[in-house]
Amino acid sequence: MNGPLAAEAAALDRADVLAAKRAEFVLDEDTVYLDGNSLGALPRDVPARLADVVAREWGELRIRSWGESGWWTAPERVGDRIAPLVGAGPDRIVVGDSTSVNVFKAVVAAVRIARQDDPGRDEVLVDEATFPTDGYIAESAARLTGTRLRAVPAAVLPSALGPRTAVALVNHVDYRTGELQDLPTLTALAHDAGARIVWDLCHSVGALPVGLDAHGVDFAVGCTYKYLNGGPGAPAFLYVHGDLQPRFDSPLPGWHSHADPFAMSSGYVPAEGAVRGRVGTPDILSMLALEAALTVWDDVDLAAVRRKSLALGDFFLRCVSTYVRAGRVSSVTPTERERRGSQISLRCAGPGTGAGTGEGVEAGELSAAEVMDALISRGIIGDFRHPDVLRFGFTPLYTSFLDAERAARALGEVVG
Amino acid sequence: MNGPLAAEAAALDRADVLAAKRAEFVLDEDTVYLDGNSLGALPRDVPARLADVVAREWGELRIRSWGESGWWTAPERVGDRIAPLVGAGPDRIVVGDSTSVNVFKAVVAAVRIARQDDPGRDEVLVDEATFPTDGYIAESAARLTGTRLRAVPAAVLPSALGPRTAVALVNHVDYRTGELQDLPTLTALAHDAGARIVWDLCHSVGALPVGLDAHGVDFAVGCTYKYLNGGPGAPAFLYVHGDLQPRFDSPLPGWHSHADPFAMSSGYVPAEGAVRGRVGTPDILSMLALEAALTVWDDVDLAAVRRKSLALGDFFLRCVSTYVRAGRVSSVTPTERERRGSQISLRCAGPGTGAGTGEGVEAGELSAAEVMDALISRGIIGDFRHPDVLRFGFTPLYTSFLDAERAARALGEVVG
Repeated sequence: MNGPLAAEAAALDRADVLAAKRAEFVLDEDTVYLDGNSLGALPRDVPARLADVVAREWGELRIRSWGESGWWTAPERVGDRIAPLVGAGPDRIVVGDSTSVNVFKAVVAAVRIARQDDPGRDEVLVDEATFPTDGYIAESAARLTGTRLRAVPAAVLPSALGPRTAVALVNHVDYRTGELQDLPTLTALAHDAGARIVWDLCHSVGALPVGLDAHGVDFAVGCTYKYLNGGPGAPAFLYVHGDLQPRFDSPLPGWHSHADPFAMSSGYVPAEGAVRGRVGTPDILSMLALEAALTVWDDVDLAAVRRKSLALGDFFLRCVSTYVRAGRVSSVTPTERERRGSQISLRCAGPGTGAGTGEGVEAGELSAAEVMDALISRGIIGDFRHPDVLRFGFTPLYTSFLDAERAARALGEVVG
Repeated sequence: MNGPLAAEAAALDRADVLAAKRAEFVLDEDTVYLDGNSLGALPRDVPARLADVVAREWGELRIRSWGESGWWTAPERVGDRIAPLVGAGPDRIVVGDSTSVNVFKAVVAAVRIARQDDPGRDEVLVDEATFPTDGYIAESAARLTGTRLRAVPAAVLPSALGPRTAVALVNHVDYRTGELQDLPTLTALAHDAGARIVWDLCHSVGALPVGLDAHGVDFAVGCTYKYLNGGPGAPAFLYVHGDLQPRFDSPLPGWHSHADPFAMSSGYVPAEGAVRGRVGTPDILSMLALEAALTVWDDVDLAAVRRKSLALGDFFLRCVSTYVRAGRVSSVTPTERERRGSQISLRCAGPGTGAGTGEGVEAGELSAAEVMDALISRGIIGDFRHPDVLRFGFTPLYTSFLDAERAARALGEVVG
C-alpha cells in the first residue's frame, strides 16, 4: 500500500544520477537501511577481495606480503584514496588506529605547535555537544600537555576563541542533531585568533565536500565505516596540513613512523610526510577491506552526492509532515540546507523521556526508544540516541527516495 | 636428498604429541615456514568464519550485529580466550588497538599509579635492546607524565631498580636475540623496589607459559599475530592486574571504556574491569578473525608447547653444527633452555656487516642479508634483522623437526 508521496518518490528515483550506485552494495529490498551514518552497507566487491587477502596474501605468501602484496605501504596508499573525498592533496592522509586514537594524536600535536609559537596558550576548546570520545580524549590531551579543557556550545565557539586558545576541536557534523558547522569560517576565525583547529569529519566524510587544503585546516580526523563503507571498526584517518607535517610531533611515535623502521634503532627519527602519523603494525584485514570499499567512489562526483543528500533530507521531512500526526515529532536538524549534514534527527516526545516538545503526546504513547524498536521490527533501520532522538541517515550512494518515503510512512503508522 | 639428521628428525616428528595440530593450518610442503614469530600461519577455520562475518553479519545484519552478533563485547570475550594462554583470570584482558598503543596506555597508567603512591618516583626504566616501538613510546609516556626515560642493558635492570623507579618496561623475549627474561624474579625485584612493571609479551605469548596472575605482574601487553596466528596486524591485548583495575587511569579514555557508553554523556566515568582498557570502536573484522584463530588452542597444553619449542631449538642448533661450516654462524640466542624463547638467532658474519665473529669468513662470501635472501628463494622462510642476524622462529603448533633439519641443511648449502 503506497502513500500519497510514493509516486513522487519513484519519479525522484528515476531522475537520480546516482541511482546506479545502489547496485554496487549488498542490500535487500525488504529493508530500508537508514543507518549508513553509523555502519555503511557492504560494497559488493569487498568479500571477494578480502577472501583473496586471507587465502592468498596471508595463507600462501604470509610474511612476504608485507612487501609483495603492498601491505607495508597500505596506510598511505589508502590515505591517498580518501584524500580527494576531503579535498586533500597526496601524502596528507594516513589510515590506521581508531578515530579516538587519532583525535589524541591530533590534539596533542596541535597543542605542541600552538604552544611552541606562543607558550601562553593554555586552553583546548571543544564543542560541549561533541561526540563523547572527542571530549574525553581532548581532556586527556589537555591534562597530559599541561593545558585545560574548556567546553562551550558550538554557537559560542567564535567568541570563545582568543589569545589563550591553543586548539579548538570541532565536530564538522553533530552526531546527534546532524547540524553542520561552518568549517571555512571557524577555521579562519581560529587562525585569526592565533589558534590551531582540529576537525572531526566522522559524519561528513563521504556525505559532502570538505575542502581541507582549500580552507587551510590544520588537522582532521575521520572514520571510514560510516559513509565510506569500510566495514565495522575499519581504521580511521588522520590529515595533517602540509605546512605542519614537519612540525607534527606525535605523542604515539611507533616504529612504523620511523624514518628507517627496519634499522630498528633505539633513537626515534620521524619520517617525513603522512607516514609520520603511523604508530604500530596496521590492521591489514580491515585496511584492505576498506581499500576495496573505496573503489565505489572512483567515478562519483561529490557535488552530486551533496545535492542528493539534501534532496533526500528535504523530501523525508516533507513525507514526515504528511504522514506523521502534527506535534508527535519535530526535527532537531536545522532545516537550512547549509546548516545540515546527511542525517535527519527527529525528537520524539513520549513518556519517560523528560524532554521533547510534549505537544500532542498522549498517555500510553510509545517512547522514542520504543518507536525505533517498532520501526526496526518493520525493517526500517535507523537508530536511537538518548534520550529522545530518532536518527535517520541518508547515504546518497544507496539510499533511494522511496526509502525515505517508506521510512516516514512507517513512522506515521508506528506513532499512530 | 636427505642429510644425516633427517632420519632422527622424522623419528622426533613421529613422537611429537602436537604433530596433529599442523593439519589445522594452511601450509604447503614446499615451504619451511620459520617466521611464525613475525606472522603466524593461517588457521584453516579462519577464512570461512571471516567470510560469514562479512557476508552475513556485516552484509545482512549490518548495524544490528553490534548486539545480535556479539560485536560489542568482542574485546573482552576475545581477551578471555587469550587469558589462559598467559595465566590470567577472566576479565583481566582486553583486545584492541596496536601493541604500541597498548604500551602507551600501560606505561602512562603505571607511572600514574607509582607516583600516586610515591610522588618522588620519576624514572621509567627500559631495556636498552627493547623492540624500538617500546622505547619510543616509553619516551613519549615519560615526556607526557613529567618523568624521564632511562635505558639500561637488561642484565643491569635488577640493580637499576630503585627508589626513583616509577615503572620498568621489559620485553619478555628479546625480538632480536630470542633471549628470555626471568619474569618472576624481575617482577618481584621491581615490587621490592616499590616500582611497577609492564611486560611486553609479543614474543612469548603462545610460545611458553607466562603466569601473569601467579607472578603478580602489574601490566602486560602482547601481540596476536605471531604465535597466536591472528592475522596481519591483528589487534593487540592489554592485561591489568586485578588489584590495579580500579586504579587504571587510561590516557586514552574513549567512549568504549565508559561505564555507560550509550548515555553519551560529556563526563567520563570509566567502566570497571578489563573494559576500562578499551578506547574507540574496535576493528571487528580483524578481531573476529583472531577469535576464530584462537580456537586452535582449545585442546593445547602449554607445557607441551614449551617442551616441543625447546626441543626444536636444541635440534636445530645440533643440525646447524652438523651442516654449517664451523665459524660461519654463531648463535646469539642463549643455549640454556631457561634463558630462551622460541626462536634461534644466528649471527652470520660477512662482508659489509661491520659485526659478527668474522672467524672463518672469506672475501666474497655472502652477507647475512644475502644468506637470508638465498634461503627464502629455496623456500626456507626466516627473516633478517640488521645488521647480521638470521632469525628462525619455531612455532610448536605447526613447525616439525624435519622443518628444522631442512632449514639447517639449506643454510649449510647456502653459506658453502
